[in-house]
Amino acid sequence: MRSARRGTRSKHTLVLIRHGESVWNLENKFTGWHDIELSEKGHVEAKEAGKLIAESKMKFDKAYTSVLKRAIRTLWHCLEQSDQMWIPVQKEWRLNERHYGGLTGLDKQKTVEKHGKEQVLIWRRSFDIPPPDLDEKSEHYPGNDPRYSHLPKSALPFAESLKTTAERVMPIWADQIVPDIKAGKNLIIAAHGNSLRALVKHLDNISDEDITGLNIPTGVPLVYELDEEMVPIPHKDAIAPLQGYYLGDQEAIRKRVLGVKNQTK
Amino acid sequence: MRSARRGTRSKHTLVLIRHGESVWNLENKFTGWHDIELSEKGHVEAKEAGKLIAESKMKFDKAYTSVLKRAIRTLWHCLEQSDQMWIPVQKEWRLNERHYGGLTGLDKQKTVEKHGKEQVLIWRRSFDIPPPDLDEKSEHYPGNDPRYSHLPKSALPFAESLKTTAERVMPIWADQIVPDIKAGKNLIIAAHGNSLRALVKHLDNISDEDITGLNIPTGVPLVYELDEEMVPIPHKDAIAPLQGYYLGDQEAIRKRVLGVKNQTK
Repeated sequence: MRSARRGTRSKHTLVLIRHGESVWNLENKFTGWHDIELSEKGHVEAKEAGKLIAESKMKFDKAYTSVLKRAIRTLWHCLEQSDQMWIPVQKEWRLNERHYGGLTGLDKQKTVEKHGKEQVLIWRRSFDIPPPDLDEKSEHYPGNDPRYSHLPKSALPFAESLKTTAERVMPIWADQIVPDIKAGKNLIIAAHGNSLRALVKHLDNISDEDITGLNIPTGVPLVYELDEEMVPIPHKDAIAPLQGYYLGDQEAIRKRVLGVKNQTK
Repeated sequence: MRSARRGTRSKHTLVLIRHGESVWNLENKFTGWHDIELSEKGHVEAKEAGKLIAESKMKFDKAYTSVLKRAIRTLWHCLEQSDQMWIPVQKEWRLNERHYGGLTGLDKQKTVEKHGKEQVLIWRRSFDIPPPDLDEKSEHYPGNDPRYSHLPKSALPFAESLKTTAERVMPIWADQIVPDIKAGKNLIIAAHGNSLRALVKHLDNISDEDITGLNIPTGVPLVYELDEEMVPIPHKDAIAPLQGYYLGDQEAIRKRVLGVKNQTK
């Protein structure tokens, strides 16, 4: 008889990590696809995450990240601190942050003053209402950025809700990440608040309503053990609704997970 | 009539860069495939290279590097300084440094004292005489390193001459790099003294005798413009026997290129 407790279920390790603080997080601006660097604090956060990975002795066969430098740099710190710089890294635009459309680059507080707290909260926290569209001439329109020049215009967003973000994230999960995991690879994915929400929504089967309130802390490795069907094996240190667990000081993490809300309050 | 001067010949840009100083360069040890990090000076050199690339405004579509962190870290600095972190990076063991076999980890001066200056010069500077083989139980044998576990044992060296290094480098040139260039991609390759010698030997048609005396300085971008047949278009700032040119202060570079020899003198 097979028994999970006796460890006969084949397990796959998948680690998710949200990038550390960026300069625009610090300046309280809507960022989305704008390619802003980590702040000093963000670099420190990412290095700390790398040290946690090093201490855990987790070894990866491959990494995924977005095409945005705050996620890439976070991954680099993780690989450098844990002495795994040699592993392949696949950079995918589908793992980018949600595109904030016409709000990109705007001050969050000023946007509240202009549009009202309620409207901004809807843009930030509703599942399927996108912010206003970008103008096609905007520097923030992906069609004006060479890194997206290989893509059809129809794939490029003018603005994204969490729903449309998830819709463009999931193909890379199905087509690339799952085949890698099924081939026996341990993976780390360094990405963004909303692209990671899309993944954990799927993994942990979280409802549309609940996912918008879920906060994944920056710079903390989130570890999933998956069975052969890509279903998470619940971990004793998991914090509901997630079945994966965060590396590090569990008490400090519980505090952080429950207190990142309401930047526009 | 076609004329190179009128710019009608299709050109491809290929940039080669040798990693900055490593901790073992500093400690005067034979390094080869040992995965040692950059020294402080090596980090500075690599950042400077990145600044030169930024000033040149050169844009890359893709990067190649080895699976050794001193080359990877050098590439990361180049991409970070020139704001091109998002480009794909392919890490290939075939771009590794020459494997120094049984000399790996030994002090160069002590090796001279033990084996004689002449013997060490032969190991360091002959084209086709490899250093002594490693023992299969050595920590430096690639078969004991997980990053090479996907390779057949027959591909793993016990020691390499420049000749056998070039023989394992060239398949990645033919099978991956050239197709990328022919597809219109501008490339940067961050690698090592001897894997880069293998590439320039081929590009500049340098003899077996002459290649061993060629010094490629660390941390200086070496730029080739290639025609459709992958033949270098000679540049006015090229230093013979190369047809590519180094970015930066041309006078300082000429001094460096002519003065890196005889570390075991």
